[in-house]
Amino acid sequence: MSAILKQRVRYPQYLPKLKTPEQCVDLFKHGQYIGWSGFTGVGSPKVVPNALANHVEATGLQGKLAFNLFIGASAGPEESRWADLNMILRRAPHQVGKPIANAINDGRTQFFDKHLSMFPQDLTYGYYTKDKENDMLDYTIIEATAIKEDGSIVPGPAVGSSPEFISVSDKVIIEVNTAIPSFEGLHDIDMPTFPPFRPAYPYVRVDDKCGRDSIPVDPNRVVAIVESTMSDRVPANTPSDNISRAIANHLIEFLEHEVKLGRMPANLHPLQSGIGNIANAVIEGLAQSSFKNLTVWTEVLQDSFLDFFEKGTLDYATATSIRLTEKGFERFFNNWDLYSSKLCLRAQTVSNSPEIIRRMGLIAMNTPVEVDIYGHANSTNVSGSKMLHGIGGSADFLRNAKLSVMHTPSARPSKIDPTGISCVVPFASHVDQTEHDLDVIVTEQGLADLRGMSPKERALEIINRCAHPDYKPQLMDYFDRSVHYASKRKALHEPHILKDVFKMHSNFEHNGTMKLDSWDVKF
Amino acid sequence: MSAILKQRVRYPQYLPKLKTPEQCVDLFKHGQYIGWSGFTGVGSPKVVPNALANHVEATGLQGKLAFNLFIGASAGPEESRWADLNMILRRAPHQVGKPIANAINDGRTQFFDKHLSMFPQDLTYGYYTKDKENDMLDYTIIEATAIKEDGSIVPGPAVGSSPEFISVSDKVIIEVNTAIPSFEGLHDIDMPTFPPFRPAYPYVRVDDKCGRDSIPVDPNRVVAIVESTMSDRVPANTPSDNISRAIANHLIEFLEHEVKLGRMPANLHPLQSGIGNIANAVIEGLAQSSFKNLTVWTEVLQDSFLDFFEKGTLDYATATSIRLTEKGFERFFNNWDLYSSKLCLRAQTVSNSPEIIRRMGLIAMNTPVEVDIYGHANSTNVSGSKMLHGIGGSADFLRNAKLSVMHTPSARPSKIDPTGISCVVPFASHVDQTEHDLDVIVTEQGLADLRGMSPKERALEIINRCAHPDYKPQLMDYFDRSVHYASKRKALHEPHILKDVFKMHSNFEHNGTMKLDSWDVKF
Repeated sequence: MSAILKQRVRYPQYLPKLKTPEQCVDLFKHGQYIGWSGFTGVGSPKVVPNALANHVEATGLQGKLAFNLFIGASAGPEESRWADLNMILRRAPHQVGKPIANAINDGRTQFFDKHLSMFPQDLTYGYYTKDKENDMLDYTIIEATAIKEDGSIVPGPAVGSSPEFISVSDKVIIEVNTAIPSFEGLHDIDMPTFPPFRPAYPYVRVDDKCGRDSIPVDPNRVVAIVESTMSDRVPANTPSDNISRAIANHLIEFLEHEVKLGRMPANLHPLQSGIGNIANAVIEGLAQSSFKNLTVWTEVLQDSFLDFFEKGTLDYATATSIRLTEKGFERFFNNWDLYSSKLCLRAQTVSNSPEIIRRMGLIAMNTPVEVDIYGHANSTNVSGSKMLHGIGGSADFLRNAKLSVMHTPSARPSKIDPTGISCVVPFASHVDQTEHDLDVIVTEQGLADLRGMSPKERALEIINRCAHPDYKPQLMDYFDRSVHYASKRKALHEPHILKDVFKMHSNFEHNGTMKLDSWDVKF
Repeated sequence: MSAILKQRVRYPQYLPKLKTPEQCVDLFKHGQYIGWSGFTGVGSPKVVPNALANHVEATGLQGKLAFNLFIGASAGPEESRWADLNMILRRAPHQVGKPIANAINDGRTQFFDKHLSMFPQDLTYGYYTKDKENDMLDYTIIEATAIKEDGSIVPGPAVGSSPEFISVSDKVIIEVNTAIPSFEGLHDIDMPTFPPFRPAYPYVRVDDKCGRDSIPVDPNRVVAIVESTMSDRVPANTPSDNISRAIANHLIEFLEHEVKLGRMPANLHPLQSGIGNIANAVIEGLAQSSFKNLTVWTEVLQDSFLDFFEKGTLDYATATSIRLTEKGFERFFNNWDLYSSKLCLRAQTVSNSPEIIRRMGLIAMNTPVEVDIYGHANSTNVSGSKMLHGIGGSADFLRNAKLSVMHTPSARPSKIDPTGISCVVPFASHVDQTEHDLDVIVTEQGLADLRGMSPKERALEIINRCAHPDYKPQLMDYFDRSVHYASKRKALHEPHILKDVFKMHSNFEHNGTMKLDSWDVKF
């Protein structure tokens, strides 16, 4: 037992349960229901999942030792190994990485994506274990950075669904990560309570802390303590480019305009920002803007937020996960006192809570696969069928924010055409955000302010301001033809020609570009 | 001035502002922004709108004296008159009645539908008046049943958006309705507060009352008091039939099962129920079931709830509107003491609040236009384009409830075929509720429990249990072909053939039925 492990585990009754990862392998049986800690690739267990993967690989048990796996959002490379080894029968609610996406899109893994605020709650209701003999998870494997004197668990860089997993798990395995410092004091954790008579979340400011600083667990359920010395490995962030910077500029100009007209205070409302290079460009842009005393209420913080803090523009940020690169974590640990006073990690039920998002009036900004001319957005399935990552928290935030923004390039390259894919289409091929949810759509071409507009007005605004010039005439043509078609049928609220709505997608599939020769083409 | 009016108006300073409806006509100018009280056809102003309609009719001002009109949900026949007379330039967020639907679908009225919890809030943010010189409504015309000593307004059978209308109105006209009793004491009203630092709604039980019993108004803004002696005229409710009773039976059996397995308490969680004959059948069924001590947190109460109370099954009900027929109101007023102790009307921001719906863990039940095989639902637009009523509160409830149920007949008649329209389709022609929101779909054929299922599993469950036998083979054929098609493309998460998704709709349009000769038909 390492000295550092002994120091971190302040509940000595756990120490006799110390096991090697390999000693845990026999606990697992095919078909079990398992929860992993972690969110967006950090804070997940590593050594026990790897030991299981090694075992499956060595004994040829691919597909025969496989699990129903739940993770707050995505885990790191260990999940990819499980996916490659056909160890994941069923998975929810969000995932990242080619191996797990392939397992889903090949039909090897049954996946369902669910609002990240809702998934842990529905789990505690027994909805996802209703076909089991008992309605509990068989195991939760949770990464800790310390164990407190009462046996409770101090998580690392992610809280995610761990409070709920622990509360409905028959048995618990704790991986104590001694390769990183203890995160004690960084968390504010609410344990689940149950309707119909549950209290309101008391949070009214981003820096309110009303929960506990660790996750309580019944020590009798802890069947193993395992030391881990593996760090999280987050890939480098996609840097901003001309397109994402143009999007950020449009958006910042718009926010300045809202402040000027009195619809937002000078320091804006708490910001939520997604993942990806547009999100990074927006954060970079805000860090360099004239805005001061900004605050953030979001689900995941990335490296760009460290600059945001250091520029002095950002007063406080809270999320359920701090997803930093190796360099980012180095900066973070070297300035622990600075960051830990300005930062708080919460359960995803809280970071993504509709209640709090609406109460605080967030500004929510997310990137879709595509938007349509009437203001619906696809966040999940390419061409309606192929899963990317899942809905994540996008709809938690976009439905409930005061200002709901989707930002996207106007077009993306296909194999044969630098603008072969239009991100503005007649009809979203999968609808995750509805026209009732979005206020603003912004591309590098411009910004469409949809508030108070009827669908036909929105179509003109979106096509004229947001669509790529290569697609404007084609989309305008679709809209005009649809208006003509619908006016004969007295169906002019949201004009569509249903036989044509997905022709751009079909053309892409057949001809490698969404540019149509004619709307009359038949597929 | 009638004696009863003098008795009802306890703030004498208003009395000099007494006007006839005709004297109010000159206050109105083309293009103004106007709020009406009312919700689901009750509690709206009547005599001033009628006077304006008479004026337009008499002077031939159709389309030339027209307004941007906002109503919490729908109003009564006065709104229909305005629609017929082309007096509605723009309208939000919900409407009922052929004349207004015609105006929207003819393209004469620009309409946008918005979540009913969100509409009043976005109005107070200035989002819907952003293109005006000032960001206020020009007038609110509100029906009152009494005026208190401080000049505040006691509404009638609906609270709706009145608190928000009043708070952002430049001028206010009060119609005091003396044809009905005062509703004083029946309301619990929260006035709007603003982010970012607003408090939580304190409600944790359906019978909590934490607001005020009237709507405060700055007396200087009140420009006219008008006496009204017109009653609300709600059409008779559609009675339950064999199909709606079969749906109700499946649902009640399911709820009994949930109680048995411990996922719901014996008296269930607070119920939300929509409008229509299925909703009525469900309420009738629950009233006759073995459930006791039920509670209701919903947006509108109908006649069926009176029986529900009288059978002793229902302990308490709260909504934003009590939409009774003439006979229903008679029963209600004759038993005022009974009902007023078990009933409370709130603002629609509260009755439909995501915060409270989620906190209390509601059971939400609503009727769609159609559902699709993967669990999305269309609540608004027939064949994707033709507006019915609007999203209403369906998504407020279905997104946030503990148990989210959509109930629909499996098929509806078309002109040429008694089952010409399948309510289960490959792809919803307008998506208002996403696959991430719905737990249960039920038709007279059976009930599909979708919790924890992947999209492909859902498709089998929905087709097998819910689709009409006339459509089962056709839908199964679509699903099988889609799986085959998607497996070649490694897009098996939610298999679709985009060119075929709306063929059933196109066939209905061309041939009067959704029954296809073959999936290979081209349109």
